Amino acid sequence: MVIKQKFSIDFQYDVIFTRDLFSPDNDTLIKILTKDENGGPARVVFVLDAGLTQAMSGLISTIGAYLSNHDDIQLLAPPLVVTGGEETKNSTREFIRTLELIDTAKVDRHAYVVAIGGGAVLDMVGFAAAVAHRGIRHIRIPSTTLSQNDSGVGVKNGINYFGKKNFLGTFVPPYAVINDLNLLQTLDIRDWRSGVAEAVKVALIKDKNFFQWIEQHTGKLNERDTDSMEELIIRCAELHASHIRGSDDPFEMGSSRPLDFGHWAAHKLEQLAGFELRHGEAVAIGIALDICYAVEAGYLDDLEADRIVGVLRQLGFDLVHPALFGQDGKEINPALIKGLEEFREHLGGHLTIPMISEIGSKFDVHEMNHLLIEAAARTLLQKQELYAHSPS
Amino acid sequence: MVIKQKFSIDFQYDVIFTRDLFSPDNDTLIKILTKDENGGPARVVFVLDAGLTQAMSGLISTIGAYLSNHDDIQLLAPPLVVTGGEETKNSTREFIRTLELIDTAKVDRHAYVVAIGGGAVLDMVGFAAAVAHRGIRHIRIPSTTLSQNDSGVGVKNGINYFGKKNFLGTFVPPYAVINDLNLLQTLDIRDWRSGVAEAVKVALIKDKNFFQWIEQHTGKLNERDTDSMEELIIRCAELHASHIRGSDDPFEMGSSRPLDFGHWAAHKLEQLAGFELRHGEAVAIGIALDICYAVEAGYLDDLEADRIVGVLRQLGFDLVHPALFGQDGKEINPALIKGLEEFREHLGGHLTIPMISEIGSKFDVHEMNHLLIEAAARTLLQKQELYAHSPS
Repeated sequence: MVIKQKFSIDFQYDVIFTRDLFSPDNDTLIKILTKDENGGPARVVFVLDAGLTQAMSGLISTIGAYLSNHDDIQLLAPPLVVTGGEETKNSTREFIRTLELIDTAKVDRHAYVVAIGGGAVLDMVGFAAAVAHRGIRHIRIPSTTLSQNDSGVGVKNGINYFGKKNFLGTFVPPYAVINDLNLLQTLDIRDWRSGVAEAVKVALIKDKNFFQWIEQHTGKLNERDTDSMEELIIRCAELHASHIRGSDDPFEMGSSRPLDFGHWAAHKLEQLAGFELRHGEAVAIGIALDICYAVEAGYLDDLEADRIVGVLRQLGFDLVHPALFGQDGKEINPALIKGLEEFREHLGGHLTIPMISEIGSKFDVHEMNHLLIEAAARTLLQKQELYAHSPS
Repeated sequence: MVIKQKFSIDFQYDVIFTRDLFSPDNDTLIKILTKDENGGPARVVFVLDAGLTQAMSGLISTIGAYLSNHDDIQLLAPPLVVTGGEETKNSTREFIRTLELIDTAKVDRHAYVVAIGGGAVLDMVGFAAAVAHRGIRHIRIPSTTLSQNDSGVGVKNGINYFGKKNFLGTFVPPYAVINDLNLLQTLDIRDWRSGVAEAVKVALIKDKNFFQWIEQHTGKLNERDTDSMEELIIRCAELHASHIRGSDDPFEMGSSRPLDFGHWAAHKLEQLAGFELRHGEAVAIGIALDICYAVEAGYLDDLEADRIVGVLRQLGFDLVHPALFGQDGKEINPALIKGLEEFREHLGGHLTIPMISEIGSKFDVHEMNHLLIEAAARTLLQKQELYAHSPS
């Protein structure tokens, strides 16, 4: 006797682009919060990235002023400020503080947790919102280029545990994502640049024209031109969102992770560098390493590789890091190779690594040769010297 | 500028009924584990309910013998035995031990965590499996009547936190559910009976014929007749599974929880009684209280209520508990009334309580009158006296 259980769940959410979200006449947030309440004000709490509240000292009072002008929103508790950056995910401290806020403010499954911050804070708050009362409504307001064009758009959340990146987490779509371009103005140059690495990544695997666009806009992006960055973020977020929508497997129950180009090394480098590398900086190195690997393995023409390395250098990325190499500074770091196995373990099943055969054309490989990785690292050392990065 | 994100996820799993799952010639488990592996053995770990391993002292060696006969299954670590009953959910201890097992045994998203135990253990292990690596495959083998016909079939998991039932949890379907009727033989009479309360509940709200069947089989069920219990479990599990499948809202994003008839009081009574009540025993009281409320409110005929109370008493349930009343033993316990608000908070949004107008016909109410609850409790006291329970 077998009962065959089978059903589908529909998910939908908007990724909205705006500027000056909390200026008095901006109704983006109001519209989202009040769109399907049946009587009574929308009940909300805010969790804010300490890095952001330091950089924008008026943020909390701006939010307060905005909310006091709107009777249809009820703030259930004062905003909670949490540690920013990867540290927010490295212990359960901020995760538990967020759960405590949800509990004491009586946030229920029809109320909202709004998180404003970088990708790490959004990951942590998103995980708390996903598991409290088996899931409460979560609105993401990413404050970095990286989270606006990449993780903020997606369906994943998590914290690190047992010293392993994203060991705990879920696939749960947000209620909505709001990208406020003005939040990016406070970023230092490293954080501003960091998100561009994910744009290069998604262009390399999906969109040759977008790669060309980036190639033509390295100067503008380095000068922190707002319109160029907005165009880059929208295009990158669209590619990311349509990838999730168009795949058979938005919750990644299979083995393939096509958006993870360059990421097996990036994840491990971040950890080996004690998180002094920004995620985007590690991704730039990871991309460059896999590009060199693709050349060594005969998948990719060397001239294409040079063009890609050139763009990454023009954008100001350092493509070599001491953590790439072992104690002698020459051999590949054995810990990096171990990262390949950890990546397989986290994905589950077979190892699946995206590669490109030309710009915009991705395919998968299921093993990587350790000697070729070593050769790729040496090639990368040489190419890094060939292309001086921009003066910024 | 808005990106509209929208996609569906298909979920499917089998609820399989068998006997003697680990006897050498039973291939139920093998078929599930190996059905979609592409090369290499299926990798598994087991988490076992201590209550069960005590009652069935040979269980671990039986599982060991079974696995050693099957080369296509690889046991990644020795079985983990965890505390059974609600205690397993009341702290994070067993949850973290389960995560440690997943980590150290290198259980990835394509390997399996098999849990064997009562509903509380399945809830706890299911939550660990749902959040480790953002979700690994989880097979549930419920060992009580209650979990075989109710929670084991469903899509919820969780642990208690901040002293609140299921404060942490997710909606994640299992990979498969296997109901082994032989596991029920070791249950004491209270646990054997406990699951029948959920069968009465689902019959009352969905299936008049099933209620009649239960009414006719109270004697057999009290005598622990295996075939009668199997029939009850299959029918109840089918109703439960088809409810999840047929609803627009398997993950309960809306307000209605039609399967929660009698549960607002049951959840609170369990807590007030310090978990010395079985969940099913509390549900029987909760059903009886809401039945009496339905009479007081004019929704239900008193003769129908008598018939229902009579069946619950015939099945051996005590329908009155000291926790129903305050310190004077007469007035309704104010803490119970508070449970109504906690129930609303956990659901989110409006209070929605299922009621019946006759056996098999459910409707929702959105408030409950405290004076009528008090009257219902007094009526219940009288009805309890009228119907002596069975001698078992």
